[in-house]
Amino acid sequence: MDHGKLIEAVATPTGGKIVLVVADGLGGLPHPTTGLTELETARTPNLDALAAEGVTGLHVPIAPGISPGSGPAHMALFGYDPVRYLIGRGVLEALGIGFELKAGDVAARLNFATVDAHGRITDRRAGRISNEKCVELCSRLDAIELPGVRLFVRPVKEHRAVAVLRGDGLAGGLNDTDPQRTGVPPLPLTATDPGQRRTAELLTLFVERAREMLKAEPKANAVTLRGIAARDPIPTFGERYRMRAAAVAEYPMYRGVAGLVGMTVLDAAPPGEVAAAVGRAFADFDFFFVHFKKTDSTGEDGSFDAKVAATERLDALVPSLVALGPDVLVVTGDHSTPSALASHSWHPVPVVLRAKSARRDAVRAFGESQCLAGGLGTVRAVDLMPLMMAHAGRLLKFGA
Amino acid sequence: MDHGKLIEAVATPTGGKIVLVVADGLGGLPHPTTGLTELETARTPNLDALAAEGVTGLHVPIAPGISPGSGPAHMALFGYDPVRYLIGRGVLEALGIGFELKAGDVAARLNFATVDAHGRITDRRAGRISNEKCVELCSRLDAIELPGVRLFVRPVKEHRAVAVLRGDGLAGGLNDTDPQRTGVPPLPLTATDPGQRRTAELLTLFVERAREMLKAEPKANAVTLRGIAARDPIPTFGERYRMRAAAVAEYPMYRGVAGLVGMTVLDAAPPGEVAAAVGRAFADFDFFFVHFKKTDSTGEDGSFDAKVAATERLDALVPSLVALGPDVLVVTGDHSTPSALASHSWHPVPVVLRAKSARRDAVRAFGESQCLAGGLGTVRAVDLMPLMMAHAGRLLKFGA
Repeated sequence: MDHGKLIEAVATPTGGKIVLVVADGLGGLPHPTTGLTELETARTPNLDALAAEGVTGLHVPIAPGISPGSGPAHMALFGYDPVRYLIGRGVLEALGIGFELKAGDVAARLNFATVDAHGRITDRRAGRISNEKCVELCSRLDAIELPGVRLFVRPVKEHRAVAVLRGDGLAGGLNDTDPQRTGVPPLPLTATDPGQRRTAELLTLFVERAREMLKAEPKANAVTLRGIAARDPIPTFGERYRMRAAAVAEYPMYRGVAGLVGMTVLDAAPPGEVAAAVGRAFADFDFFFVHFKKTDSTGEDGSFDAKVAATERLDALVPSLVALGPDVLVVTGDHSTPSALASHSWHPVPVVLRAKSARRDAVRAFGESQCLAGGLGTVRAVDLMPLMMAHAGRLLKFGA
Repeated sequence: MDHGKLIEAVATPTGGKIVLVVADGLGGLPHPTTGLTELETARTPNLDALAAEGVTGLHVPIAPGISPGSGPAHMALFGYDPVRYLIGRGVLEALGIGFELKAGDVAARLNFATVDAHGRITDRRAGRISNEKCVELCSRLDAIELPGVRLFVRPVKEHRAVAVLRGDGLAGGLNDTDPQRTGVPPLPLTATDPGQRRTAELLTLFVERAREMLKAEPKANAVTLRGIAARDPIPTFGERYRMRAAAVAEYPMYRGVAGLVGMTVLDAAPPGEVAAAVGRAFADFDFFFVHFKKTDSTGEDGSFDAKVAATERLDALVPSLVALGPDVLVVTGDHSTPSALASHSWHPVPVVLRAKSARRDAVRAFGESQCLAGGLGTVRAVDLMPLMMAHAGRLLKFGA
């Protein structure tokens, strides 16, 4: 019995309410002068109070040494084996612009490119056309008709867009047509198994018609496709955990991932209003996913001080969430984004869990080094979901 | 996707240099009087400095409670699931004498034995014949010709030797012919699946001819075979990690295991010259495995004081390795060999990792009890390889 099946076997539809706050990229690295991380530097009286009242620890998002993208990192926090339920790049791009993918849809990242008279790529980014141009060209490509399927082409930014096919019998996992270099034509689409054949034919036809339609464009006269992926079926929160779940997130990608696992995506709220958003829906759901972005984006920018400030804004949200009276309140990150690395990293992520049944530990401040001594120890991210459910009284005894 | 495939999927051929120092049998147990282990008793200012600058922890070689042999313990440190990539005893014996096994070779431990007129074993060790006698008899057996394959017989020590078959269609996993007691004849070789039939026939023929050839010997007038094993294909460091790896090791078996995973085995250097050996090859490789034997052999001898002294010699190697400027420097053991047990044990093994991206912990001395509070926590040995690669910037982000 795999991890997911075990939880499904013991999940019961009654129990307490859970609020999971994901501060994106929360974990950090010590400042070279002070030896304190961003989280340890920030003034976080409310998070420290949670640490004192609850139980703390660290989680490893995917596996030791593995730096996760946002997709697998959130899937793991939601309790799904992030290697098994891997979300393809095309799907993630579509979610990132708020496109509502349906089960069976196939999505790809589309890049506008420049090709010469021989069809050889001379600019893989079509001179980074303007956003306005991207919108205009996508609107034209969107009108292309393909036999038996519906095509959607949606702009992302500059030369970047998303193409989605909707219909029966489609498959993902096809090769990228972007050759990753100039001087050669785009690669042909090849089906490596028979189930991909129809999708390869349809996308080949789309690429040809796009070429025809764009031939008068000075820069964006061709397209390449990457990360062609199907929206694979995923057991929902309702099916697996028997919980009604809601998401409060500003950024489309996190809204999208929440939607993939069957959460109801509530209206976006700015950080200061997330507790109010949760409060309004409190009676109607069992589980709330609250996403906080700024701890990641400041880390990605490489700014220690900005990440400290973002962490203090995170701390300020805590009292109003506590005031709602959830049975289980967890604050953690999806991965570390140390400002010293200016990128996602593999370092374990602090986690604090507050619940009546928490076996309190000696940790009185919320930080990477403090959490090392926490009562949760260091767990895998996928193990947090059953822990939260257990503390909410939502898992029955396993076996007699 | 298994552990190895996950790493392979994100490994990139660029990044920093890694030096892994394996002090064989490093972990120990407390002295009954002082309560300090061998490592904690030894004066190790250089290892302590590494602990202060880097991050520490413990690793479990195979699984809790499992005392590993040197083969699986090193495979785990090299990031290979030691249960899946099990190196058979015959293969390990061959590696231990520096015999260069090729893929598909089948190797067995050979014991000279004494049998009576009825073919019943009267001495399973042939009266422990001299090394010289072993060499002479092996040289005679080595001349036996078998149909369609090449036979090698090589002496190990006293009554012990190695037999290797080289050719197509051979298989390992056959039963031992040593009945483990006297008064009965050696056991026949039996193929339990059709793929083993030819190997069983060839080795049966070899045993008969050896018996004929040795019939005039007063003691060593028969042979038994144990641990018949094929050298199975293993993905190399180059294939799996995209790293050029080199090994500095004195003892043949560790040289052999390094060779099995595709490392270039450098000329053996005595302990005092390992840093120079690494230094000479520093530009040509990405990963260096340095093996230090004495911490194990002194532990096996049951000598607490000798193991303390060996540990201090290990400590003396550290500054010259640090001086080479590796991006990642790790010092650990392959398993524990507490002198109190005078054998390999299952106890977790201290590990220290020094790298710019290490999340430093409060540990300031390198010892079993100190490492319990280390920032790495307690990890499985197979997880160290991805951690080292992550700190060397050699693993791409997983998923988007």
